Amino acid sequence: MNLIFEFVNYIGIIAFAISGSMKAIKKGMDLLGVILLGISTSLGGGIIADILLGKTPPTNLTYYPYVLTSIISSLITFTFYKIFTNARKPLLYADAIGLSAFASSGASLAFSFSHDFLLVATIGTITAVGGGVIRDVLSAEVPLILIREFYATAAFIGATVYYTLRIMGYPDIISTAISFLVTLTLRILAMKYNWELPKIEVK
Amino acid sequence: MNLIFEFVNYIGIIAFAISGSMKAIKKGMDLLGVILLGISTSLGGGIIADILLGKTPPTNLTYYPYVLTSIISSLITFTFYKIFTNARKPLLYADAIGLSAFASSGASLAFSFSHDFLLVATIGTITAVGGGVIRDVLSAEVPLILIREFYATAAFIGATVYYTLRIMGYPDIISTAISFLVTLTLRILAMKYNWELPKIEVK
Amino acid sequence: MNLIFEFVNYIGIIAFAISGSMKAIKKGMDLLGVILLGISTSLGGGIIADILLGKTPPTNLTYYPYVLTSIISSLITFTFYKIFTNARKPLLYADAIGLSAFASSGASLAFSFSHDFLLVATIGTITAVGGGVIRDVLSAEVPLILIREFYATAAFIGATVYYTLRIMGYPDIISTAISFLVTLTLRILAMKYNWELPKIEVK
Repeated sequence: MNLIFEFVNYIGIIAFAISGSMKAIKKGMDLLGVILLGISTSLGGGIIADILLGKTPPTNLTYYPYVLTSIISSLITFTFYKIFTNARKPLLYADAIGLSAFASSGASLAFSFSHDFLLVATIGTITAVGGGVIRDVLSAEVPLILIREFYATAAFIGATVYYTLRIMGYPDIISTAISFLVTLTLRILAMKYNWELPKIEVK
Repeated sequence: MNLIFEFVNYIGIIAFAISGSMKAIKKGMDLLGVILLGISTSLGGGIIADILLGKTPPTNLTYYPYVLTSIISSLITFTFYKIFTNARKPLLYADAIGLSAFASSGASLAFSFSHDFLLVATIGTITAVGGGVIRDVLSAEVPLILIREFYATAAFIGATVYYTLRIMGYPDIISTAISFLVTLTLRILAMKYNWELPKIEVK
Repeated sequence: MNLIFEFVNYIGIIAFAISGSMKAIKKGMDLLGVILLGISTSLGGGIIADILLGKTPPTNLTYYPYVLTSIISSLITFTFYKIFTNARKPLLYADAIGLSAFASSGASLAFSFSHDFLLVATIGTITAVGGGVIRDVLSAEVPLILIREFYATAAFIGATVYYTLRIMGYPDIISTAISFLVTLTLRILAMKYNWELPKIEVK
C-alpha cells in the first residue's frame, strides 16, 4: 500500500463513519447503535470488496488503524452531534469526499488483483457505495444510491478513470489522485446543478 | 460450461433483470436506480452462490455477456415500461422461468464443486431466490419469497431433481433440462391452482 | 471440533431458530417462510463468519446435523406456536443463550484461524449478532441489535474473554465455557436491570 492510497482511504472512512453515525442518531439509536452503524457504513464497502476478490479475512476487520479511526469518528459525531446537525452542507461534501475516496481506493485494490476493466469498475463502485447501502438497509430504508441522482454513476466513472490511466501506464499514485478528483468534481457538480437522470412517472 | 447451461442462465438473467427494473420503476427510481436494481436482481443470486463456494471474483462480476445482458434488459424494460405494465401475466411467467433457470444452473455449478446433496440443493435454491431477496431488501420490503407460496420450495425440488439425476448417472445437459422443466411446471401449477402452505392466523 | 463447542453451538442454533420462526409467524408468513427465516436466523451468523474467514463452503450449509436441527426447531415452533407465545420470558432467555453460545463458538472458530485480537473479537460478535440482523432485515425492520441495549456489547465482551483466556494459556474447552457464562450473565443482568447506554434525544 502506498501513502496516497492510505490517505485517501482514511478520508473515506472518516466521512462515512460520520454519515453512518448521524443516521443512527436520527433513528434514535443509543451509543452502541451509533458506533455499529458508523463502523458498518465506513468499513462495509471495503469488506464486501474484499469478499468479492477472495481476500479473507477482510483488511477492514483486521487492520487496527482503520477500525479505530471508524470508532473514534463515530464517537466524535455522537459527542458533537449538534455541530454536525447544523452543518448539513459540509456533511454532503464529506459524503462526496468519502465516495470519491473509496471509488479510487477500491479500483486500485481491484487493479492489483486483475486488469479486467469490468472487475475494476464494479469493485470500485461497490467499495464506494456499499457502505451507504448497508447503512440504509440497516435503517430499513430504500438505499439513497437508488434514488439519489448521479451518485453511483460518479463512482463508476471515477473507477473507469483509474483503470484507463493505469492501462495507459501511469503509476498507482497519480491514477488514484486523478480518479479521486474526477469523482469528487462530478459529484459536486451534480449536487450544485441538480443533475438528473430520466425517470418514469408512475401514476 | 455447456450450451444448455449458458442458454438457461441467459433466460434467468433476462427474466430477473425485467423483474428488478420493473420494481425500481414502481418505486419511483431514476434510470440509474432501475439499472442497478435490475443488475442486483439478475446477478445477485449467482454472486452469493459463487461467494459461498469460494469462487472469487464471482463470474457475474467479470463475464461481460452476463453483465451486458442484464443492463440491456433493464434498459429495454425502462424504455418499454408501458408494455410491461400491461403484461402482468407474462411477467409472472418470466419470473417463474428465471426461478427455474437459476435453480438448475445453480445446482449444476454446485455439483461441479461437490457431490454433497445438501450443498447442491441449498446453492441451487439460493441462486434461484437470492436475486429476488436482494431486490426486495433494497426496496425496503419483506422478501416476496417469504410470503409467496411454493416459490423457494419449487426451486429446492428442482435442485434436488438435478442432484438425483446426476447421481443416477445422467449427464449435466439432460439433468439441467429436466430440472428446469420440473421447477417450471411446479411453479406454474402452484400459480394456477393457488397452492398454499399452512399458515398460523395471528390474532 | 470438541464436545463443548458442538454442544454450545446446538444450543445457539435451537435458540435462534425459535427466535426467527416466531418472528416469521408474527409477520404472517406461511410454513415455508417460517422455516426459511428460522434457518436464516440460526445459521446466518455462522455463514457470514465463515465467509469472512474464507472458509467456503460454510459449515452451516454442508453439515447435516446443524441444518436439520434448525429445520426441526422451526417446525416445532410452528406446531406449538401458542405455547411459545405465552412464554415471552423464556424466549428472551433462549435468545440470550443463543447470543452467548455463538459469541464463544464464533471466537473459538476465529482463534483457530488467527490469534489476532481484533479478528477474534469481531468474528465472535458477528457470529452472535449476524443471524438476528438477517432476521430483522428480512422482516423489513431496523435490526434490534442497533436499538436494544447491551446486546452486541455483551457478545463483544464474551469474545474478548475467550481471547484473553486462550492467550493466557487456557484450553479451548475452558475458554469457551467461561466466555459463554460471562456473556450470558452480562446479558441477563442487562435485561434484569435495564442497563442503558447514552442516547441523544432528537427533537
